Amino acid sequence: MKIAVDAMGGDHAPGCVIEGVRLALESVAGLEKIYLAGDEERLRPAVQEAGLTSPQVEIVHAPEVVDMGESPALAVRRKKRSSIAVSVDLVKEGACQAVVSAGNTGAAVAATTIKLRLLPGIDRPGIASPIPNDHGMCSLIDAGANPDPKPHHLLAYGVMGAVYARHVLGVANPRIGLMSLGEEDTKGTEFTKDVFRLLRSSGLNFVGNVEGHDLFERPLDVVLCDGFIGNVVLKSCEATAHAMFKWLKQELTRTPVRRLGAMLARSAFLGVKERVNYENYGGSPLLGVNGICIIGHGSSSPKAIQNAIRVAAEAIAHEVNPHIVEELKRLGATTHA
Amino acid sequence: MKIAVDAMGGDHAPGCVIEGVRLALESVAGLEKIYLAGDEERLRPAVQEAGLTSPQVEIVHAPEVVDMGESPALAVRRKKRSSIAVSVDLVKEGACQAVVSAGNTGAAVAATTIKLRLLPGIDRPGIASPIPNDHGMCSLIDAGANPDPKPHHLLAYGVMGAVYARHVLGVANPRIGLMSLGEEDTKGTEFTKDVFRLLRSSGLNFVGNVEGHDLFERPLDVVLCDGFIGNVVLKSCEATAHAMFKWLKQELTRTPVRRLGAMLARSAFLGVKERVNYENYGGSPLLGVNGICIIGHGSSSPKAIQNAIRVAAEAIAHEVNPHIVEELKRLGATTHA
Repeated sequence: MKIAVDAMGGDHAPGCVIEGVRLALESVAGLEKIYLAGDEERLRPAVQEAGLTSPQVEIVHAPEVVDMGESPALAVRRKKRSSIAVSVDLVKEGACQAVVSAGNTGAAVAATTIKLRLLPGIDRPGIASPIPNDHGMCSLIDAGANPDPKPHHLLAYGVMGAVYARHVLGVANPRIGLMSLGEEDTKGTEFTKDVFRLLRSSGLNFVGNVEGHDLFERPLDVVLCDGFIGNVVLKSCEATAHAMFKWLKQELTRTPVRRLGAMLARSAFLGVKERVNYENYGGSPLLGVNGICIIGHGSSSPKAIQNAIRVAAEAIAHEVNPHIVEELKRLGATTHA
Repeated sequence: MKIAVDAMGGDHAPGCVIEGVRLALESVAGLEKIYLAGDEERLRPAVQEAGLTSPQVEIVHAPEVVDMGESPALAVRRKKRSSIAVSVDLVKEGACQAVVSAGNTGAAVAATTIKLRLLPGIDRPGIASPIPNDHGMCSLIDAGANPDPKPHHLLAYGVMGAVYARHVLGVANPRIGLMSLGEEDTKGTEFTKDVFRLLRSSGLNFVGNVEGHDLFERPLDVVLCDGFIGNVVLKSCEATAHAMFKWLKQELTRTPVRRLGAMLARSAFLGVKERVNYENYGGSPLLGVNGICIIGHGSSSPKAIQNAIRVAAEAIAHEVNPHIVEELKRLGATTHA
């Protein structure tokens, strides 16, 4: 498998990205080649310093960078030689099968949508963000690609999320929930009620409305919502976990006895930290584009990049896109507006 | 101060509600009388059993109950003698100054809006839910009263949240943020961009867009969002805290050494639990109705009810509504569509 990595994407690029590529080459099965897209003058010494001299790594010059605050649509139009644009071009030209970026999410969505186009039957791509549910990994779709969706977009996300859960995560009959204000069928906005009706007659294993309460403990494989809510929910959950660890640390260091207790139980805290640590999940597939794109967290560490590359390799190996196309065909016109 | 309490509202009513009233009578300054609205035949023995024989408590018969799953609009129209309807009637008649309910939120919103009407200049009420921010209590508005708002509704929530923060929480110059997808002015949906423009020219201390990441650590007094997002975010944050405590417990009981450590550090865990425990905040003011209504968590404990009554007493004492009316007048037509 050959994967393009946006070397300039993310808060700690290119250092963390290069280190993540090194870790991935050591650990991800079937990985043949990584194309590192970015400013050659900056990348070459950094790659050498990291000892990444393997012939499996090839630098592809991309002199421009899309910054985190830039307008995605403008950036894609104006910066033809940005690291994300060049990465996506490599997929388009067939040089590789997937792209990984921890840079400006909107730019990755825009570049892949414009250059690779969408799968037949798909109007808008959606980001499937992994949630550590007690019953296995759950995908929250959409985590921010499409903040103002139409009801049929969420139906398509349901189909794609189910395919991803079945073929990549190995879930036989993925359970799909719709984020709403209460479990009852009648709860929600006009938008969620429309989506509810589409899902109920879709043939998917739709379990009905779910609530914020259900994210971690109710058996769910896919939770659907608009991209605005998905983004806000994810960041709010991260903020809660972060604040709790901080408060715990404040409380644990307050007395000598608590400090001793904390020392003895240290490995337990690390266990929970690992469990909520996004670095271990690594990346969120952008479902719906005609090619594989994995979006990393803006503050991706080497481990996060390594895992994003692993997620890309799994999506390639399990042929997510052909399966999505097949499933959309099977469901016929039901996912169209 | 006289307050009506919906004795049948909440998952553990009437037991927890009655116990909460007892705690409030012992602790809330200036509380003269509690009207307990509910089925007299059920309430009288329960009140006696709880030893709540104070002449400060008066049972007001309300034979009907609005269930959690019922349609609020229908329930308010059809069940004229429900515990929430009778509670609100007591405010309307001037027998008391506030109502507290942990029952069906939609029914409380509908009953107060229909019976008490809204403050002049207000189109829709909004729930101000307290968030334990590191820099003081922050109000998330709206937490679910208005899932499909117009931009000027959020402007009004900003005005009301600022008044609440200033007059009840004692914040001199409340900082108001708008929940969006990124800090940049350009981020968000058409809806949030419209709200952004209204807030920027409002004269409020508007700090701009905020993200889920900012809820607990960035200095903010009011965070504005639509009621759908507010509700989902609150429940997701609660779910995260709940899951983390569960995972922590699992990890801490895994080995004898960890168990010993957990025992020594026990008070630290309780400290964090208290900090994230909604029972300590007690209730969310429903801002905008012409009367004071405090909405409790559906699973309210006695302590939560006690604190909801405290929040009601504070809103009465600090004359929130007259201050809101004054502030809306001062800002003139800017909060209108």
